Amino acid sequence: MSPLKINYPKGQRSHHHLNNPSNNQKKQPSLNYSNRGMSLEADINTTNEQYLAKNLAIIHKKPTPIQVVKVDYPRRAAAKITEAYYRSSSTTDYNGVYKGYYLDFEAKETKNKTSFPLSNFHKHQIEHMKASSEHGGICFTIILFSTLDEHYLVRSDFLFKWWDQQFEQDGRKSIPYAEIKKDNYIIPYGFNPRIPYLEVVNQLIDEKTT
Amino acid sequence: MSPLKINYPKGQRSHHHLNNPSNNQKKQPSLNYSNRGMSLEADINTTNEQYLAKNLAIIHKKPTPIQVVKVDYPRRAAAKITEAYYRSSSTTDYNGVYKGYYLDFEAKETKNKTSFPLSNFHKHQIEHMKASSEHGGICFTIILFSTLDEHYLVRSDFLFKWWDQQFEQDGRKSIPYAEIKKDNYIIPYGFNPRIPYLEVVNQLIDEKTT
Repeated sequence: MSPLKINYPKGQRSHHHLNNPSNNQKKQPSLNYSNRGMSLEADINTTNEQYLAKNLAIIHKKPTPIQVVKVDYPRRAAAKITEAYYRSSSTTDYNGVYKGYYLDFEAKETKNKTSFPLSNFHKHQIEHMKASSEHGGICFTIILFSTLDEHYLVRSDFLFKWWDQQFEQDGRKSIPYAEIKKDNYIIPYGFNPRIPYLEVVNQLIDEKTT
Repeated sequence: MSPLKINYPKGQRSHHHLNNPSNNQKKQPSLNYSNRGMSLEADINTTNEQYLAKNLAIIHKKPTPIQVVKVDYPRRAAAKITEAYYRSSSTTDYNGVYKGYYLDFEAKETKNKTSFPLSNFHKHQIEHMKASSEHGGICFTIILFSTLDEHYLVRSDFLFKWWDQQFEQDGRKSIPYAEIKKDNYIIPYGFNPRIPYLEVVNQLIDEKTT
């Protein structure tokens, strides 16, 4: 269905029509695919910095929520936190503004090759995305199938449908890879920006406004 | 000065056209004004929860950025951070979505009665708000003059003008209280929501769309 999914699974190579001039990986033989990104999060942070530098969008990762229990205030030095714990977030990790739209998204990674386990999401993240969508935000998830080295931009309506069906009788606890591929958008790996997800967001905006 | 501010020169009482039905403080004599809010941040967090509960807007405070240096992983217990430091944020504290608009704001408090020192802002916060405004977001600052017990919603164009003039010859390093009062919006203290800033945002949206 998606215009982006032409010769898949033969590959990302077919997606150069996205016009990422830096995506010519053949000329960069030193680029080792297995080490392309430190992690999905690092890649998306880099992408957001690249978008910010180009003044295309203002998107930031929210800091990890941490519950601070004890702080030392040494003289002549910065306050030092000596006891703290990670808390789970009540929202998604990324949000910001693009072309006047509120964007809100989560990034998830799986080594699984045949499906994406729904247990990767917390209930409150889904609720947050549902509410943000209702209020006019553009919500989605970037899913990396790390073994396949494929990034998908997964639409929120698609995600909500799969999330909700798991609670029905005989509901599946995961989304089949083939379904993700069929109904969503692959994001080709680039250089600048590294994960050019706004190209897909442009299509979501087009759908929204037509 | 009584926090009720009934006799305040031009008076919050005149701002009841903001239609906050819960703002009838005379009927709530048990409300101890000196303890009304733990802090501006707590009041705004409460307000955002109230807006969320009413399904009016999805606004969250971003977690405080913390640089984690050491973590212990005790068996059978949660990871314990044993060395970490506060970092300064590269954005504002609050953002989210309201009526399809991206909102982005900062909350600042001063004990000063005659002016608001511009040193309360970091340069990157102003730059972030300028960029977010350019991309169609609605940006503002909620300033609490704590000694006067008055909250103002300060427009971003007003703030940028005052921010920029400080670098000119003989530029002021603070914004006079009278100027803030003249060109901005007071936010009456309420109960639910506690600081009904969206009433003012509605006016900003009206201006934007007309």
